[in-house]
Amino acid sequence: MELIMPRVLKGFRDFLPEQEIVRRGLSEKLEAGFRSFGFLPIDTPALEYAEVLLGKAGGETEKQVYRFTDNGGRDVALRFDLTVPFARFVAEHRAELVFPFKRYHIAKVWRGENTQKGRYREFTQCDFDIVGADSAAADFEILLMMRNALVACGAGDATICVNHRGLFNRFLGRLGVEEKLVDILRAVDKLSKIGSDGVRELLCACAGEDAAGAALDFVNFKGDWEETLEMMTQAAGGDNPDSERLRLIRSYLVDAGCHDAFKLDPSIMRGLDYYTGIVCESFLNALPSIGSVCSGGRYDRLLSLYSKEALPGVGASVGLDRLIAALESLGAGAGKRTYAACAIACVEEAAYGRYQAIAEKIRRAGIDCEVFGEAKKLSAQFVMAEKRGIRRVIVPPSGDATSFILREIPSRTNREGLSLEGVIGIVKASEAHPF
Amino acid sequence: MELIMPRVLKGFRDFLPEQEIVRRGLSEKLEAGFRSFGFLPIDTPALEYAEVLLGKAGGETEKQVYRFTDNGGRDVALRFDLTVPFARFVAEHRAELVFPFKRYHIAKVWRGENTQKGRYREFTQCDFDIVGADSAAADFEILLMMRNALVACGAGDATICVNHRGLFNRFLGRLGVEEKLVDILRAVDKLSKIGSDGVRELLCACAGEDAAGAALDFVNFKGDWEETLEMMTQAAGGDNPDSERLRLIRSYLVDAGCHDAFKLDPSIMRGLDYYTGIVCESFLNALPSIGSVCSGGRYDRLLSLYSKEALPGVGASVGLDRLIAALESLGAGAGKRTYAACAIACVEEAAYGRYQAIAEKIRRAGIDCEVFGEAKKLSAQFVMAEKRGIRRVIVPPSGDATSFILREIPSRTNREGLSLEGVIGIVKASEAHPF
Repeated sequence: MELIMPRVLKGFRDFLPEQEIVRRGLSEKLEAGFRSFGFLPIDTPALEYAEVLLGKAGGETEKQVYRFTDNGGRDVALRFDLTVPFARFVAEHRAELVFPFKRYHIAKVWRGENTQKGRYREFTQCDFDIVGADSAAADFEILLMMRNALVACGAGDATICVNHRGLFNRFLGRLGVEEKLVDILRAVDKLSKIGSDGVRELLCACAGEDAAGAALDFVNFKGDWEETLEMMTQAAGGDNPDSERLRLIRSYLVDAGCHDAFKLDPSIMRGLDYYTGIVCESFLNALPSIGSVCSGGRYDRLLSLYSKEALPGVGASVGLDRLIAALESLGAGAGKRTYAACAIACVEEAAYGRYQAIAEKIRRAGIDCEVFGEAKKLSAQFVMAEKRGIRRVIVPPSGDATSFILREIPSRTNREGLSLEGVIGIVKASEAHPF
Repeated sequence: MELIMPRVLKGFRDFLPEQEIVRRGLSEKLEAGFRSFGFLPIDTPALEYAEVLLGKAGGETEKQVYRFTDNGGRDVALRFDLTVPFARFVAEHRAELVFPFKRYHIAKVWRGENTQKGRYREFTQCDFDIVGADSAAADFEILLMMRNALVACGAGDATICVNHRGLFNRFLGRLGVEEKLVDILRAVDKLSKIGSDGVRELLCACAGEDAAGAALDFVNFKGDWEETLEMMTQAAGGDNPDSERLRLIRSYLVDAGCHDAFKLDPSIMRGLDYYTGIVCESFLNALPSIGSVCSGGRYDRLLSLYSKEALPGVGASVGLDRLIAALESLGAGAGKRTYAACAIACVEEAAYGRYQAIAEKIRRAGIDCEVFGEAKKLSAQFVMAEKRGIRRVIVPPSGDATSFILREIPSRTNREGLSLEGVIGIVKASEAHPF
């Protein structure tokens, strides 16, 4: 038989255990955080009707989508994000959900993107949203969760930059260029990439010189939350509900004692015209250059493809792959090669059943424990443990012996004459306070 | 704009929170079990080269596969199981892995199956395998994990039926019908569906009347492990390494104290000709009619599509959807509608930041806590808690008050005059011993 070359598609990748342990650890921390706020998990199919995912128009997104005709002749596509399936889900199951509905969804999505930018065609999204509530409380809860998620992941302090698209729209209305919104958003979104002069050029082209200057002053404004809000409020023509919303969010942040992590930043736009209220991006203080690792905002037209009823929502999405890259750069997160805190050495193969019975007692104490299956020399089994990233090897009694030996792999030292309870106590204590 | 009907593809489905909480709970228990044995997680792409997944021949499987040409002109397919991608993974990364390599993989797979049988086209597989070890220890470890997985899932006692394909092959060799193996396997595999007479007819057609009679006697033999092994050994022509393997596995099971859950059953075949050593299926004692909820066996030719080198392996797969159906039938598992053990009522909306600060203290004590965002009447907030499946509502102090009220939703009773620490103590204690 002719052999086939084992290889993955361009833009796709395998995760080896060491990488997958990091990814699962991160995903579990995020999920624990979402659950602790009362958010509920959902899941949706990877494959949907193309029309359901793309609408009837298609557009820019379509080029990147994995779309094909299935064996039943249906026009289908792999989901390219978790937002559109969520909208379809809410529209379809509206009567079964309790609102405000708070959901999280951690799942793969697929986009046939240009891989030259170092992007992958399969990646994991972690979305969390509240739908059915248009309030400062809901906006604030999402902001708080963003910050908690980043802290929990061990990425150190983060700065979450907040803006309000409603206020920006009011400002553009006063300038008389609101119909240029999409072009202006795209231009301002490039600020960090092409600088003020570059953006000015783009803005002049679409909105004229005066509006360009005013818009640049707006987005480049530097000040604390109160000063920035005052500027934005004036630019928007005075007091209005959007300014009031930002004022209330700020007071919640202060009351919760975490306002230092949040900045009102008029340059944050989030390219999509999808957002209608707050928009936010978050940057790791230790590695701002990697870009936003968690972004989101408020939207009003979630259901617009499927229903005439409006449903307000607010949410954010963690870029898991970018976050992992950041943690790697910071030297955090990686290095764990197994969950097993210890292994039982195999002294005689005939006793393997008894070794597994011992391991069961250790596992019941909450300790993950591997059992080696081959009665090689102990020194070879210690090397095996080292290769597998296991820090302790338990040598069970054999012959007339009744006591255990505990080998500490990093220090190459033995503790002898231990009872099984003694072994469990030592491993448990060291797992509780690892280094 | 014309609206689009929100609907999923035939054979696909959404998971609402109540269902997804069950699925995730089960998957987390399985994963904790796999990790406790030192098994490592991996992940592979959902989409691969069709040739890599299907080989050059294609065959029966191919009809069920989601296969298409991507935008780059590649012939690609969605994975239809986790075994073939695992083989490709091991062949590709062989030099990076430590053998014996023990991995688990819990992920979605896709098959365009006939949905009339109540089957889904997207479902989750949970596979665990040891490759690089051909030993009774490895066989036994997989068997032990199968049983532990089912116990951990709360499905009650299970019976794991074991057979050995090597012994059956030796027996067929003595009958002189080994070249009919595949047909004979398929016939015997139908025993529980079409009964002895039906199978006899199929066997006569492919192997002749004498062999059919002998094969039926073999697979219908009833006895304890020792008696059955003796019969199989004689049928295979006397002592041989496969019988010795089963003898050793049995002694491990006895030593580990779990032999009562295991049965040597000569009728277990696992249709595929892929298996070469032990094969096993497991049945819930409380619900045997649902069929095997975890099955597997030993194989030698894992890498055969990609490499001339042999690599022995043994593993099993949990049918998560079938297991969930079983748990539902048994009235176990379902009913949890949220992770939140409590919610903080919203007495005044201006204090929402303070409420989240209180919730943070509760979360740090390890309790998942939602915060309600709207200052509705308390009675309405208690109804909201009930709808969301939250058993306790904490009413924070307002005005001059300093103490908390804890509302128990099921009993509609209040405990008043509590400190925050008091509230945390009560919730924590009741979560540790629910009901």
